[in-house]
Formats: sequence, structure tokens, C-alpha cells
Amino acid sequence: MSNIPESLSNKTIAVLGGTGPQGRGLARRFAAAGLPVVIGSRDANRATEIAATLVEPGYGTVTGADNPTAAQAGDIVVVAVPWDGHGELLKTLAAELAGKVVVDCVNPLGFDQHGAYALDVEEGSAAQQAQGILAESIVVCAFHNVSAVSLAAPGSAPVDTDVLVLGDVREATDLVQDLCGVIPGVRGVYGGRLRNAHQVEALTANLISANRRYRAHAGMRITDI
Amino acid sequence: MSNIPESLSNKTIAVLGGTGPQGRGLARRFAAAGLPVVIGSRDANRATEIAATLVEPGYGTVTGADNPTAAQAGDIVVVAVPWDGHGELLKTLAAELAGKVVVDCVNPLGFDQHGAYALDVEEGSAAQQAQGILAESIVVCAFHNVSAVSLAAPGSAPVDTDVLVLGDVREATDLVQDLCGVIPGVRGVYGGRLRNAHQVEALTANLISANRRYRAHAGMRITDI
Repeated sequence: MSNIPESLSNKTIAVLGGTGPQGRGLARRFAAAGLPVVIGSRDANRATEIAATLVEPGYGTVTGADNPTAAQAGDIVVVAVPWDGHGELLKTLAAELAGKVVVDCVNPLGFDQHGAYALDVEEGSAAQQAQGILAESIVVCAFHNVSAVSLAAPGSAPVDTDVLVLGDVREATDLVQDLCGVIPGVRGVYGGRLRNAHQVEALTANLISANRRYRAHAGMRITDI
Repeated sequence: MSNIPESLSNKTIAVLGGTGPQGRGLARRFAAAGLPVVIGSRDANRATEIAATLVEPGYGTVTGADNPTAAQAGDIVVVAVPWDGHGELLKTLAAELAGKVVVDCVNPLGFDQHGAYALDVEEGSAAQQAQGILAESIVVCAFHNVSAVSLAAPGSAPVDTDVLVLGDVREATDLVQDLCGVIPGVRGVYGGRLRNAHQVEALTANLISANRRYRAHAGMRITDI
């Protein structure tokens, strides 16, 4: 049924913000790989409704819950909420997330008539803000530059991108690289410590600019690795 | 002798900081494509000495000069100097660079026992600092993430990377994309406006982290374009 690596066996993946485009896409792909997934939302009923749309026959399960319940249920918790409200949400979930690997995918971006641009973040990056709030969790930064459109393709369709995985704890970045690898075509590549997260989050603005110019859904591959 | 595009015919490329690893590599590759190149340095004698080592038989010319003379000679001027002193140098060359396309390749990085990290730049990025100083020039940002080691391979050896080209003037970014394309294997991809330059400069820290982890000379390809 699946080719999930040993490191992820029996692990439940929670996706906070799992009703948004990026969260939905990741949840569906994780489930398609055979992993049990729970998506979180402010509204548990909406999460349950969306969850039902993300399961492909014969694959893993997707259930919906409010954010605290989802955070509690996840062994690995992916944070795919909008930047606006990111810190406030995490403050309310510190207890549920304690002792867990938290994967922050949030891109602090602004938009105007010239397109996307990176926002200044007081803590340096969304990932560093998360680590500052979640002192008892291990924060890893990943999945920033994965096209939600590509994720929305059928579960078996490869996504042509590498994912830069950043963090300060090797065991956690290795685990998240394994999680990247369950999505067909995707490869997790170690990309440094959390202090270098800002530019990976912000690079999404450049890919959005390229998407506008070339009418594409750009991803990226790291060469020579 | 060469396959240089029409947009670059009869164009001289100046490389300021042309005696450093990145500058040397770019100068040699541009010359190998058949373009006339002049490298600049504080020390004209050193520039001349290094220039003599960069010419491959049958290709373009490389000459050396002090930085003002090189800046004056170039139709397109590549800035590959160290970040330390970047602004001070450009302030002295505003007259020579007026009316020209200036290609900033500078990565404002710091290094400590944990590796490389992005420095805060008051103007946002090296490229924006350059544009602020060079009001009469058109600044484009490119060539940040090209491995100097790969550039140092023989002129015909392909370099497996795309180059993100950023700028606010379409004609200038198109021209610099053409310049990227004269290096075998390299493709220039439009990556947005100068306000999004910081993260492209800073991403070099992530590639350095990956290089340390994987013992590689990482580059990057933008997918779906």
C-alpha cells in the first residue's frame, strides 16, 4: 500500500491550516503515501468536510478536527496557516506541540500591484518565530516552495521539486527529509540551520514572480546533490 | 568562434573584483564564449597578471585594469567584489557606470563556526544598495548562486545551474539573461524585482550549508520553466 520509510511508520501527520490550498495539498499527498493524516482548522466542521475530499480510495486516512485536537493528535505537526495569525495560533498550542517535531511551511509575504514581496519578520523568519514560541518543540522549516497547484494533482503524479529542509537538530531534519520523500518526485535536501530560514521563506516571492512571467508553477532542484 | 546572441555583439564585459574566485570564473567563461572582457582590481598590475591566466586559445580577450578603467571600458559591468567595501567602491565609480547595466553578484554573508549566514543590509540587499548609489545606472542582480568551482572548470564544461535574474527594467534583465546563457549549461531565469534580491543573495548561505553536508558544489534549477 505504501513505501513509507521506517522513520515514519505509525506516525500521524497533523496539518494545521489544512483547509488552505497548501495544507490541503500536503495532507492529500501524505495520505496518498499511506500515512494517517489529521487536518486542523479553527472550524472543526469545516476541517471534517475538507478531510473527506482528500482521501483517495485505498490510501491513508484523513480526518478533520479543530487546531488543538489536530495538534494533539499529530506525531509530526505541519504548520501551513496564513502568516497573519501564525504567532498567535502557535502561542495557544505550545502544550499540545511540546516534545514534537513542528514543520513550519509559512511564507511571510506581502502582495501589491507589482506582485509578491518578502515581509520583514522581527524574529528573522516565521520558523524562528515558531521556535521562539515553542520552546519545548523542535521546529524544522520545509515545504515553502512547493506549488499548491502541483500538490493538487492526483496523488500519484510526481511533483518536480526539491524541498529545502532547515533546522538545528539533525534527527529532526532527517525525519522531515523522509517526509518530503513520500511525495512522488519530491526530495528533501538539507539547507542549513533555522537562522537561514528567512531567505527560503522569502524565495517564494521570486518563484511567484517567475510564475507570472512564464505562466508556470515553478519549483526548484538543487544540482550536484 | 562563438554563439553570442545579437544583444551582446560588440559588447565589452567588465568584471569588477575580477581577481577573486567568482570574478575570475565569470570573466573566463564570458571570454570563452567569445566576448571581450576586462577585469578590474584595485591593483592594475595584479589584474593584468590574472587576466593573462584566463584566456583560452581561440576565444575572446581578457585584459586587466584598475577598477575605474575597467568600469569605463565595460558596456555591461559585473560587480563581483567582496561585500565588505561594496558600497564604498561603487560610490567612487558612479560616473564611469552612468548609463550602463550593472550586474551585482555580491552576497552579503557572514561566517562563524556554524557556517554561513545572511547579513542584514540596511538598504535591503546589495543590489538595492548598488541601485541607491548608482542612480544613473540600471542595476540587475544575477550570478549569486553559481559555484566558483564549477566556473573554474574548462570553458566548455557545462555548469549545471539556472541563474535568477532580478531587476526593475525588462530590457536590462533580458540582456543579463542573455549573458547568463553564454555559459554552457547556464540559463538565466527572471526572478522578480530588485526588492526581492535579498533572499537570492542570502540563499547562497543555504547552498553553502548543503555543500558542507553533501560535499557538493550545489547549484539550482527552476522547474516547470
